[in-house]
Amino acid sequence: MGAMTSTKDRILYASAELFRRKGYTGTGLKEVTTQAQAPFGSLYHHFPGGKEQLGEDVIRVSGAFFLQLFVFIADEAPDVVTAVQDFFRGAGETLVATDYEDACPIAVIALEVASTNETLRVATADVFTSWLDEAATRFVAAGIPAARARELALSFLSALEGAFILCRALRSTEPMAAAGAAAASEVRAALTTVA
Amino acid sequence: MGAMTSTKDRILYASAELFRRKGYTGTGLKEVTTQAQAPFGSLYHHFPGGKEQLGEDVIRVSGAFFLQLFVFIADEAPDVVTAVQDFFRGAGETLVATDYEDACPIAVIALEVASTNETLRVATADVFTSWLDEAATRFVAAGIPAARARELALSFLSALEGAFILCRALRSTEPMAAAGAAAASEVRAALTTVA
Repeated sequence: MGAMTSTKDRILYASAELFRRKGYTGTGLKEVTTQAQAPFGSLYHHFPGGKEQLGEDVIRVSGAFFLQLFVFIADEAPDVVTAVQDFFRGAGETLVATDYEDACPIAVIALEVASTNETLRVATADVFTSWLDEAATRFVAAGIPAARARELALSFLSALEGAFILCRALRSTEPMAAAGAAAASEVRAALTTVA
Repeated sequence: MGAMTSTKDRILYASAELFRRKGYTGTGLKEVTTQAQAPFGSLYHHFPGGKEQLGEDVIRVSGAFFLQLFVFIADEAPDVVTAVQDFFRGAGETLVATDYEDACPIAVIALEVASTNETLRVATADVFTSWLDEAATRFVAAGIPAARARELALSFLSALEGAFILCRALRSTEPMAAAGAAAASEVRAALTTVA
């Protein structure tokens, strides 16, 4: 966030943080530019579509960022079971480190807009699809049949997103640990069936 | 919603529906009274604490309702594995029947308020805790040790809540089916270990 960061990036970064913490509807544009230390007019200069464009860009940029994070963790892990465990553990650690503020940046917007803003709903669907495809590809590479890999990706991501909700409400990482253990053991069982 | 329904109940019901569909922040009190066919003044008469009290009452009343729904489904089912399957199947059917609008009434509020409104955060935590306790009690009654029953309840509820997010974003019940199958098979495995 130093002097080298562009105004546009600062606005995106501030929006992502505010949306995650207060929701899309609850975030005001004035608040965004204040937090981004940007003149208010610069928002419409960089995002002529206003709040909706900002929402869509945040969804897509955050989606790409978390996809890369998953790729990075999966590349580092010795196998897919460890990759799943590492991802849930990392999510739990981030929740604690940020006092339960920093969870999935897409989930709250996804719930807020699913029935009210089709442009943003499609953006969240695209992001979830990219995550599901990447996870399924990893499971297939580990030897799991494609249909089963898709199911594993769906239940892995459901468990992760739901655990974020419970962890933030209960202010505890216990749901993330239980969901992570269940997801890892489901992937392990799928690998054993194949072997 | 006939003439026999009290104004207070109509306001609560309209709020629950609007919060679920548009979020807590995105719902205006004028909208609530219009949808409830109630005079605007009656809102503060029945809910002197205004929107926050309405939010808390909706969370607690909806929480009790869904707890009863789970109890009803579990009582009807021949065993806990079937109960879990029935609950996920029912959730998927409700999503389709309501054009993906009618999901968990607590989840979106939980994400919106987790970091911004402690009264409502505590209400969502209380509701989730009541659901987790009921599910764990059922698993224990089926012969699963208490610590494992708690883990199963946590991963069951995480999977359910996360699947609601994915189903609404993707406009598909595929995530609910995958999450339900995973949850049922996890419970089945826990019972087999015991037996």
